[in-house]
Amino acid sequence: NVAFDSKKHPHRRYNPLLDEWILVSPQRSNRPWQGQTEKTVQEELPAYDSGCYLCPGNERANGEKNPDYKGVYVFDNDFGSLLSDKVDFSVNNSDFFSIKPERGINRVICFSENHSLTLPEMEKDAIKEVIDVWQQQYDELGSKEFINHVQIFENKGQIMGCSNPHPHGQIWAQSSIPTAVVKTQENLKNYFEKSGRSLLEDYLKKELEYGERMVLENESFVVLVPFWAVWPYETMIISKRKAGNILEFSEDEKYDLAEIIKDLTIKYDNLFEISFPYSAGIHQSPTDGISHPEWHFHMHFYPPLLRNAEVKKFMVGYEMLAEAQRDITPEQSAEVLKNLSTIHYKSRN
Amino acid sequence: NVAFDSKKHPHRRYNPLLDEWILVSPQRSNRPWQGQTEKTVQEELPAYDSGCYLCPGNERANGEKNPDYKGVYVFDNDFGSLLSDKVDFSVNNSDFFSIKPERGINRVICFSENHSLTLPEMEKDAIKEVIDVWQQQYDELGSKEFINHVQIFENKGQIMGCSNPHPHGQIWAQSSIPTAVVKTQENLKNYFEKSGRSLLEDYLKKELEYGERMVLENESFVVLVPFWAVWPYETMIISKRKAGNILEFSEDEKYDLAEIIKDLTIKYDNLFEISFPYSAGIHQSPTDGISHPEWHFHMHFYPPLLRNAEVKKFMVGYEMLAEAQRDITPEQSAEVLKNLSTIHYKSRN
Ligand SMILES: O=P(O)(O)O[C@H]1O[C@H](CO)[C@@H](O)[C@H](O)[C@H]1O
Ligand SMILES: O=P(O)(O)O[C@H]1O[C@H](CO)[C@@H](O)[C@H](O)[C@H]1O
Repeated sequence: NVAFDSKKHPHRRYNPLLDEWILVSPQRSNRPWQGQTEKTVQEELPAYDSGCYLCPGNERANGEKNPDYKGVYVFDNDFGSLLSDKVDFSVNNSDFFSIKPERGINRVICFSENHSLTLPEMEKDAIKEVIDVWQQQYDELGSKEFINHVQIFENKGQIMGCSNPHPHGQIWAQSSIPTAVVKTQENLKNYFEKSGRSLLEDYLKKELEYGERMVLENESFVVLVPFWAVWPYETMIISKRKAGNILEFSEDEKYDLAEIIKDLTIKYDNLFEISFPYSAGIHQSPTDGISHPEWHFHMHFYPPLLRNAEVKKFMVGYEMLAEAQRDITPEQSAEVLKNLSTIHYKSRN
Repeated sequence: NVAFDSKKHPHRRYNPLLDEWILVSPQRSNRPWQGQTEKTVQEELPAYDSGCYLCPGNERANGEKNPDYKGVYVFDNDFGSLLSDKVDFSVNNSDFFSIKPERGINRVICFSENHSLTLPEMEKDAIKEVIDVWQQQYDELGSKEFINHVQIFENKGQIMGCSNPHPHGQIWAQSSIPTAVVKTQENLKNYFEKSGRSLLEDYLKKELEYGERMVLENESFVVLVPFWAVWPYETMIISKRKAGNILEFSEDEKYDLAEIIKDLTIKYDNLFEISFPYSAGIHQSPTDGISHPEWHFHMHFYPPLLRNAEVKKFMVGYEMLAEAQRDITPEQSAEVLKNLSTIHYKSRN
């Protein structure tokens, strides 16, 4: 028998945030691909598009008109997945047919009036403004009596189901704490109760020591490829100090967050020299009025591309039925990301 | 306040197989879509394609040549995610860096020598042959000392990451029981230990009574849209009697399974009059040598299309970070599927 080598041999890794295993197959990355390829032609977008329902001054689907905004602009989603109305409901659940109404608010956050921008191409100060709005929104929505969780996220790129290229993110705020957040919270809590410390604080300490999965670092934040990452170039931004949620960040910390988001998304764009698609979002303490010393602010980036701008990782048959699976190792991905420039390829010439 | 109506109001439903909630937004189905559309042009495929590495007589990527097979043909995947070699490994795990080697075998199952076919277009007897091979493979692989779980599945269609249209499925057999199977097993087991009965047997009894999520039924099997389905037209085949795995099925039951797979996949093709993409796979007892009275054979179908042949449901931002979400209700989907013909649209004229 040869000795186990995580760069060569199939193996499983444990994700302590979700309490589940993933399958890693480093030997599989050179299989031939005759399957679906993604459109990669990147049209140059205009700064203003009269057909875009997110651009300033334009009419939206419900007949409302956007103001002539500059910078960040927030409004209630016209086709939200949640409604804020209270409905009458009598519990009538059985083992198999448990159902309950869910109240909430969906908002859209335009990051800029400029239709052609994306986060990596925005100025650090402009990204800081987005973060200010995340903070305000988390505060405002989270203070409502019927809102116990505020999910802030961005779907970027058509391949991630984004229906409009105008730079924007979303907020889904709701009464219940969603499935994946409950799981994460349970695991953070178990660790906190056992050790009196934050799981992510202790994890980060080790990662800073090892270095092999580190991508970026500044005063207040770190970007790394988690040991248990499932998407090819998945990363996580973690605050160095244990902040439970975005309200705890100072002005300086918000600038540091803006900087690291800018540098990370520039690296992503530079990877295949395209506007790099991903879903990203913040995990932080719920707004349920309970104290949550276990929570530690972090932001996940889940980008689907695998080999190049055209071939993505499909989480399908085996992954849906059995377990998440990846080909290149997290260490290989971190190495690639670490070595990429933080100067955007478009501004290089 | 108005009274709660599951056809109109956002709500959450509980999935007892995975012990998690999903979000249902029936009011959201008519939002406008300007996002990605899928290729729908269906080329007529030839019965034999000299460039296809799955067709009889052709050479594969590793230089081996396929035999001149007729019917079903099985071989080891040339670019598997698992290797069967044993490696030396000393446990060296910590809270954050748990890793262990994983052994296994990946196989490809060509359903037919005919490059242009798919399950709904195959004869019932030919589908029965596929089921015979599933049975043999589960038996053969499951009997190996280092194989404790045999995952049988099919990715159909480019949109599901399928890299070759030649009709085929896969088997990933491995030492560990994968994440989603462990979860399902835990929930089946809790129920069995509490009640002495199969969760799915009791669930099925209720669904047969209510009728509103039923799609198909024969002597031995039922197809329904689970109360907690997340994909727009997700279905589940459940055996009427509690069989723990495919080895327990008689010849008659295998014919019944072939029939209901054929009828279900014909309905799927008829839905948008295209070859309907999905990932499908069997959940059944692990082959770990332990008795599993809690298990009850079922097969999941996870199809991504939502509104028409071009617009799929994206499980992205909110879904990745927070919770699975659907627009139309499971009852609406069941109604649509129930009313579709079991005569394939191509053979109608
Ligand atoms: O094995 P294939 O068909 O090459 O690959 C496909 O199915 C696998 C199992 O679900 C996935 O891991 C791959 O991402 C997908 O592209
Ligand atoms: O809200 P959008 O951008 O229209 O829609 C996109 O993001 C949502 C939240 O992740 C998903 O539910 C949709 O499937 C996706 O297409």
